[in-house]
Formats: sequence, C-alpha cells, structure tokens
Amino acid sequence: MEFKEIKCLDKGFVRLVDVMGDDNSIVQAARVSYGKGTKSVNEDRGLIRYLMRHKHTTPFEMVEFKFHIKLPIFIARQWIRHRTANVNEYSGRYSEMKDEFYLPEIDQIRPQSTMNMQGRSEETFPEETSLSIQNRLKETQENLFSEYKDLLDMEFARELARINLPLSNYTEWYWKIDLHNLFHFLRLRIDSHAQYEIRVYGEAMAEIVKEIVPLAWEAFNDYSLKALNFSEPELKALKEMINGKNLEDMDFESFGIKKREEAEFKIKISQILS
Amino acid sequence: MEFKEIKCLDKGFVRLVDVMGDDNSIVQAARVSYGKGTKSVNEDRGLIRYLMRHKHTTPFEMVEFKFHIKLPIFIARQWIRHRTANVNEYSGRYSEMKDEFYLPEIDQIRPQSTMNMQGRSEETFPEETSLSIQNRLKETQENLFSEYKDLLDMEFARELARINLPLSNYTEWYWKIDLHNLFHFLRLRIDSHAQYEIRVYGEAMAEIVKEIVPLAWEAFNDYSLKALNFSEPELKALKEMINGKNLEDMDFESFGIKKREEAEFKIKISQILS
Amino acid sequence: MEFKEIKCLDKGFVRLVDVMGDDNSIVQAARVSYGKGTKSVNEDRGLIRYLMRHKHTTPFEMVEFKFHIKLPIFIARQWIRHRTANVNEYSGRYSEMKDEFYLPEIDQIRPQSTMNMQGRSEETFPEETSLSIQNRLKETQENLFSEYKDLLDMEFARELARINLPLSNYTEWYWKIDLHNLFHFLRLRIDSHAQYEIRVYGEAMAEIVKEIVPLAWEAFNDYSLKALNFSEPELKALKEMINGKNLEDMDFESFGIKKREEAEFKIKISQILS
Amino acid sequence: MEFKEIKCLDKGFVRLVDVMGDDNSIVQAARVSYGKGTKSVNEDRGLIRYLMRHKHTTPFEMVEFKFHIKLPIFIARQWIRHRTANVNEYSGRYSEMKDEFYLPEIDQIRPQSTMNMQGRSEETFPEETSLSIQNRLKETQENLFSEYKDLLDMEFARELARINLPLSNYTEWYWKIDLHNLFHFLRLRIDSHAQYEIRVYGEAMAEIVKEIVPLAWEAFNDYSLKALNFSEPELKALKEMINGKNLEDMDFESFGIKKREEAEFKIKISQILS
Repeated sequence: MEFKEIKCLDKGFVRLVDVMGDDNSIVQAARVSYGKGTKSVNEDRGLIRYLMRHKHTTPFEMVEFKFHIKLPIFIARQWIRHRTANVNEYSGRYSEMKDEFYLPEIDQIRPQSTMNMQGRSEETFPEETSLSIQNRLKETQENLFSEYKDLLDMEFARELARINLPLSNYTEWYWKIDLHNLFHFLRLRIDSHAQYEIRVYGEAMAEIVKEIVPLAWEAFNDYSLKALNFSEPELKALKEMINGKNLEDMDFESFGIKKREEAEFKIKISQILS
Repeated sequence: MEFKEIKCLDKGFVRLVDVMGDDNSIVQAARVSYGKGTKSVNEDRGLIRYLMRHKHTTPFEMVEFKFHIKLPIFIARQWIRHRTANVNEYSGRYSEMKDEFYLPEIDQIRPQSTMNMQGRSEETFPEETSLSIQNRLKETQENLFSEYKDLLDMEFARELARINLPLSNYTEWYWKIDLHNLFHFLRLRIDSHAQYEIRVYGEAMAEIVKEIVPLAWEAFNDYSLKALNFSEPELKALKEMINGKNLEDMDFESFGIKKREEAEFKIKISQILS
Repeated sequence: MEFKEIKCLDKGFVRLVDVMGDDNSIVQAARVSYGKGTKSVNEDRGLIRYLMRHKHTTPFEMVEFKFHIKLPIFIARQWIRHRTANVNEYSGRYSEMKDEFYLPEIDQIRPQSTMNMQGRSEETFPEETSLSIQNRLKETQENLFSEYKDLLDMEFARELARINLPLSNYTEWYWKIDLHNLFHFLRLRIDSHAQYEIRVYGEAMAEIVKEIVPLAWEAFNDYSLKALNFSEPELKALKEMINGKNLEDMDFESFGIKKREEAEFKIKISQILS
Repeated sequence: MEFKEIKCLDKGFVRLVDVMGDDNSIVQAARVSYGKGTKSVNEDRGLIRYLMRHKHTTPFEMVEFKFHIKLPIFIARQWIRHRTANVNEYSGRYSEMKDEFYLPEIDQIRPQSTMNMQGRSEETFPEETSLSIQNRLKETQENLFSEYKDLLDMEFARELARINLPLSNYTEWYWKIDLHNLFHFLRLRIDSHAQYEIRVYGEAMAEIVKEIVPLAWEAFNDYSLKALNFSEPELKALKEMINGKNLEDMDFESFGIKKREEAEFKIKISQILS
C-alpha cells in the first residue's frame, strides 16, 4: 500500500502509515450489537448516521489509524494531552536532535489577540516588524543549534546537551488512534480556538480520514463538527426567537446569560442565519 | 465522615465511600493552567461555568468519587462498559453468591416498546398478567438459588456452581471515578433511553454529586444535561423557524432530514417551546 | 484475507477478524525512537528481544488485533475487566438471546479446590456424580430458555425478559486490542490460576498471535510468560542456594518468608531444577 | 490538612495537594472481592502483601494522590507519557512563562556514557570544563528569556513568542493518579536507567507515598522494586549455579544468552550475592 503524505507547516508532515478497517468495519461491528434486531436500519449510510447521531461511539472505535508525524515540540506538547493513543517518539536521549526548527511564515507573525487570551490577533504587524521578528527567531534557532553541536562535540551527554534547544525544534513520532478518539481530537484541534499550528495538522489528518471512511466523515461533519449546542439558558432565548422576537430586544439577563455568553449566542445565531 | 447511602431498586444501594475535592478543587486546578492570566474570569461560579461551556474538561478530573454499589448483574454488565473507572467487584469464584435477586415491581413489568427496539413500553399489562410474570420470575429465582446451594453442598466448585445463576442476581462493587467521567456516565445513564434499572442508580449518584459539587452540577445541568444539540441539517430547519416558517410547512427532505430525524427534531422543538 | 477461527469450549470460538501490523511494525516504531542512534542493535529479532527485556512496551502497542469471540457471559464478565480494549457486544435489549449455553464437559465437573479458594480441584467426582450434575445444569438451562421464550411470546420487554437467563448463556463480541495489552491479558489469563474456561480462549488467541508476530511471541515467552520473579526476601534464600545450602536447611522465617510464600518459592525452585 | 512539599532540582518541587485513602482503603476494597471467603488472609499487612505478590492490582487503584509539581519542560515531556493520570498544566498560551530555568549542578555536568546510549557517564569533566558548560547554559537561558520579554513587549502573540524558549524552562502542573499507576510510574522512574532529573522527582514522591501507605510501600519495595526477574534462558543458567557451577565456567551461548544479556545476568547475580 502506498499512503498519502501531506506537508504541514515549513518542515513537518502527516503520513498515513497503516489503517485497519473502513466504513464497512463500523457497520459490521454495529451489527454484532444489534444481532437479528436490525432489519429496519439496514442501509450502511443510514446506520452510520444513526450511530453518530445517537453517540453510539463504540463501532467507530473499530477503525484504527497509524500516522507518522513530524511536528514542532510545542505542538507535540499540546497533542500528547490526548491520552487514548499509542505513541513512539524520537528520543533526544538516544539520538541527536536535528537542525530543523519551526519558523512561522510572515503572515502568522501577529500580535496578541485582545479578545482571546490564548490566541493571536486577526490583525498583522507592519511588514518590517514581522520580518524583523522572523529574522530574530531564525537567528536564535541557528545559534541554539550551533551551541548544541558544540556541546556534543565536547562530549557533553546528549540528554543534557539538548535542554536549551527550543520548543520550535522538530520532533517526530508514530501515533496510532482509533476513529472515535481521532474524531474527538479533530473536533478540538480543527476548531478555530485551537492554535493555528496544530490546526494545520488536524486538517491534514481530516483530509486523509475523509478518504478512508467517507460515510463516517460525513456523519461526523453533519452531527458533530458543524452541529451547534445550545445550553438550557440559550434555549430560552431560542424560544423567543422562534416566537418572533428580535435579538436586539432580548433580555439575556433574565435567562441567566451574561455578556460573554450573550456574545457567543449571537455568533451561533449569525452562523445559522448566514 | 458519614456518607449518604441511597436505596436503589428492591435490594440495591449506592453509598458514597469517599470523595477527594469539591467545587474549589476545580477552580484551583484551572488556575494552575491560567497562571497570572485569569484576572478577568475570577469568580468561581463564572469560571466553572466557563470551563464547562468550553469543554475544558481536565479541571473536572481533579475531583474523585468512590462509591460502594449493590446492583443486579445485568446492570453491572452495562455499567462496566465505562472504562475510565476503578473497580473491585465481589467474586463468585472466591465467595458464595447471596440469595438476592432483582424482582421488578409490578409497575415496571411492561410490554416491549414498539417504537424503541431496546426498551419497554409506556403501556402496562393487565394487572393479572404482570402479577403472573412477577410470580414466575420470583419462583425461578428461588429455584435457581436452591439448586446453587445444592451444588455447593455436593462440594461442586464455586466457580462452576454459579454459572446457572441468573443475571438478576445481585453483586456489589467499589467504583471510583473522576467527576468528568462521572458526568459522562450520568449523561448517558440518566437519559430516557437508558434502561430504567440503571437510571435509578444514575439518579441516586446525581443526588450525591449535586451536594458535593453544587456549582459544577449546575454548570453540567445547564450546558450539557439540559442542552440540545442541533446537527447541520437541523440548523437549516431551525433557520427557517427563526425566519417564521411553521413546522408543518417545512420540507425536511430538502435539508437531508429523513423521517426518523424529523421526528427527533420535532421533539426537540416541542421541548424548547413548552 | 481469510482468517483463522478456533473453536473454544462447547459452542464458542475465537476468530481473527483483522490485524494491523506484524513483527516488522514493532521494529519500525522502535527505530523512530532511536533515530540514528541504533546502529548497534540493528537486527530485528535482537531489537524485539531487547525491547521486551527492558519493558520498552510502546512499540508493541503499534500492532493491533481485532477478534470476533463467542463466549459464556460469566467469562465475558472476567474478560471485560481488561479496560484497554474496544468492544462491541451483542445486546440483549435490542435482540433475542440465543438458545446456547455453556455445559461443562464431564472432566471439568470437579469439586472445590481445598488449596485454592478460587478454583476447582485436580480431583474428580465419581462419574455418576459428575453426570448427574451435568444433567441438572443442562435441564435448568433448557427450562430457563423455554421460560424466556414464553415471556417473549407474552410480549414482555426483551430488556427484562432476559434477567433470569443464566451466566452460562453465550454472548458474542468484537474485541480489538493492541499487542502490548494483549500480552498483558494473556499473561494473566493463560496462567494456571485463571479459570479454566477463560484459559481456553487465552490459548486460542495465543495460537493466533504466535502466527502473526512470531518474534514478538518468542520474546514474550522467554522474558515474560516463562520468566520467574523473585522478591527481595526470596533473593536472600536464592543466595543461600547458590552458596550450596539445601532447601530443607533453609530458615525462611529469618528472611521474612512465611509459610505460604515458602511454598510458592519451593514451587519456583522445583520448576527451575526440573 | 498541611501537606509536605519537597524541593527538587534547583527550582522545582513536589507538593502533595490531596490524597484519598490509605493502607486501610486497599484492604477494604479487597475485602469486597473476597466477601465471606477471606477468613484465612485476614491480617492487613498479610493481605496487602498477598495482593502485591499476586499482582491483584485493582485494590491499589482505590487510593488516589494529587500533586502540585514544578518541573523543567524536558522532564514534563517524559512524565506525560504516563497516560493514566489527570493533568492540568500551566499554559504558555494564556500566561507568560516565568524566568526560571533548570541549570544542572556542576556534579551533573558529565560526558555521554559510552555504555548507555541514553545516559550520562559516571565520569566527570575537568572542573573548568564543567564550569564553562554551566556558564554557557546559564547565559543562553538569560538571553532567551530576555528575547522572550522583548517579543512580548512588541505585543507578539504569547503562543508564538514562547516557541524559542528552551526545554529547560520550568512549567508546573497538578497531577492526579491512583496508587497502582503511581507504583508503575515510580518503578520506571526511580530506576537507574531513568534520567537523573526525573529520578529526583520520583524519589520525592516515593518519600511522600511511603508515609501515606507504609504497608503498601513495603510490599511494593519487596515484591516489585527490589525484586529480580529471570528470563527463561536465565533460569537455565540459574539452575547450573544452584547445582554448583561457577559463573566463569558457564556456557551462556548454549542457553541462548548473548553478550549483552550475559552482562545483565552477571549484574543480577552480583546483586544477589553482595
């Protein structure tokens, strides 16, 4: 089998190494549960959508993906928080780290967001500022690697020589996960609140997954990724809207909805109405 | 500490054995993540609601519950499918099983649902039918236990003498789980699609949890338990409703919504409007 | 691919449904960790044995097995305690349970062990006793299934009609697990302390695993399955033996070894010396 | 409750935040499994030792520890590979990283080991070399933090400004784990093959655990930490030794023991005989 490799960021990639199962494996596993009882939901697409809609997640666990991924360490640190996967990572104790560092493109060199404590702004810097930041990052990376090599040349132990290498250094790993948990990872990491650099990897994996399990992907897209959740207080506001009230006339306080949630609700409504 | 025990079904119970943490532990753990950065979300209730709303689940994992539970084996079999818990169960290999069986109350002795492949009907049988079924179940349980005792009296090995004991036999276990995973369990098991007998246990635990972490419970209730999820196709229908269209005039087919989903959508809408 | 099915007990089986990877996948994943650094351990068998010996378990997680298994419910209850697997089980809520029950062979119908609280004896009953027990078990199983059918004929809800079915009733499931966790399962379930009926399944899976990953199996056999562990107190006794002392002259008390452990130690020594 | 804090490395610590249970909780959970059947193993210490010896691990899962830990990022990366724990880490996206970096003591600044691909040597450098390496590490850390502050002053987004911070930068987290999994962590991380810097944390936690569950710790020490495992081939060599043969006269090849394993075997024997 020849599997797809997708370039990510400046020096990284996602490569599918192996896969067990496809849409049919999901159906096959679900049918074990239903035994004789499934005459009425017997079309594959319908069954897969039914399973996704009702959060019958175990049949999706029956498909397994194995990826080879090259990624900067600061992204690896976010990634590894997903515990339901198997991982083999390159070891800086056994082996020399490589001279590869993530250098953000000019377009990604942005100010701190003022809205979002954890993200970058939609705005950009004046181009010369961005260029100067990028240069500075690059120079530091070069200096750090050159110092690392010096320390290794002095025979300093690898496991310590690496401690001043930066989080932008690339690492790589094999990462194996089942489809249910991969969907969970993607839902969080394709999201607009995820850091741009991990989103790039999420989208690369999404492209691969879509090809391998098109029906499951479609169901995931419709019932989870593009679905919206309304809290109990928001449902009260939604009721008013269905009854013809305008957003502007709504007394959000009376539903227990504070400013921040009000803003989030309005974004959802504008998504629906767009 | 003296913890609460709640009777469940005819002979079972849920008893809180120990608990680590409370609402404050959730806040404390979240504040580690945010460091200096949290000035603006500094009120506890607000922070807990924010975490729940944005599915920042890890701080909820910092609270841990340990229960002692007595339950029929067929419920234990559903329960144990939740893998993220620690369990010590009574062993029928080491010890004699006890003469305790779940006998459904008359009111629960109901026909198969015709709507729901996996549930019982809202209807009941004529009372004498229910009584006769209940009697039959009871007699069989008595006979099976008496046969079990006979086999043990013949010195037949415990691990085999028990194999004809029924799934209605009670077992017990210690069950330890963190709050995030407990919420996940409760969401599935308090749900109206869960089997009545496990729902009873779910509701007992909910009552206990509510007392220990009232703010987290409130957030869970508002943003998860009582929240509604609308799929991408449903959002199209919702748009029409907000724009003033009647449910009856809706062309669900055009949104890719089939009969079964249409029914589910209508139930959600009636919940909102009620 | 045509995969192997192995009959287990009277009506059960283990069937390999799918597998991802082989010995080579273990090596491939390990090499990611070692990067350039592995020149010296470059032979596959050697590397696999090195990984097993030093409990570098993650590369073994890169191989995944999916089995279809038919098994009695009391065995399913022991099996499911292994949490690191994916499962889809036949549902007695959705579907009718089948008229298939585990009936132990005459040879397995044995008295309670007096040595082992949780097991059956090496001894057997007089044949007529065994036959009479077997008959009784069989008759009860027939009666229970016939009652179950009666209750279903009365339209009694499936989810309740099944509660008096016995633990000897067969169920089936899809079960997916990685090689590291499968080895852990097999170590516990092939062991002589495991209940005979689950050992039969363990041995069937072992046979399949051996064919798919022969090098990993060999390493598992040598370094784990057939290895012996000596506690700190036992190592003191072992020192004396290496220094020429006889087992009979040993003062176990002085090493902090009590009766039960002394017996366990002697069994290990006799295994070594045999 | 006032819990212990233990300093680790130059700026880190381990602090016990909360604990659920003690030795008695282990016994209590085990007794649920054994029910009436445990008359003979009724002394607590004996029962705990029995459980540990026979790898009945679930009762140890009934004790839960929560730690607050401050540690360098390269150690956090090794630590997080243990998946069966709950974690809340300080976020460099939300908050500014602090001006705290791990600077190895002179005594730890050592050459690469020639025996052990992944470790430092027992030897040291000439003192002036060590001092010069230490100075260089320190200077680089200062420069990197000063550059980080510059970038923040330019309003560069926190989530990107941090990518050239080094792996020696300190982070902190809340880490919650059950006793069984903590023992597993400690067995691997107290081991002489673990990197010195994580061993320091392992030993600090060991000290805390010992105080909270003294009987479980003693059993862990005797049956696991200080126990030795002999592979099937090694058991053949051990047989010869018990039969009076000298290590020097042993034909290891004939047992399938290669050079590297022979060396490992000899180390074990010298540990026993010392």
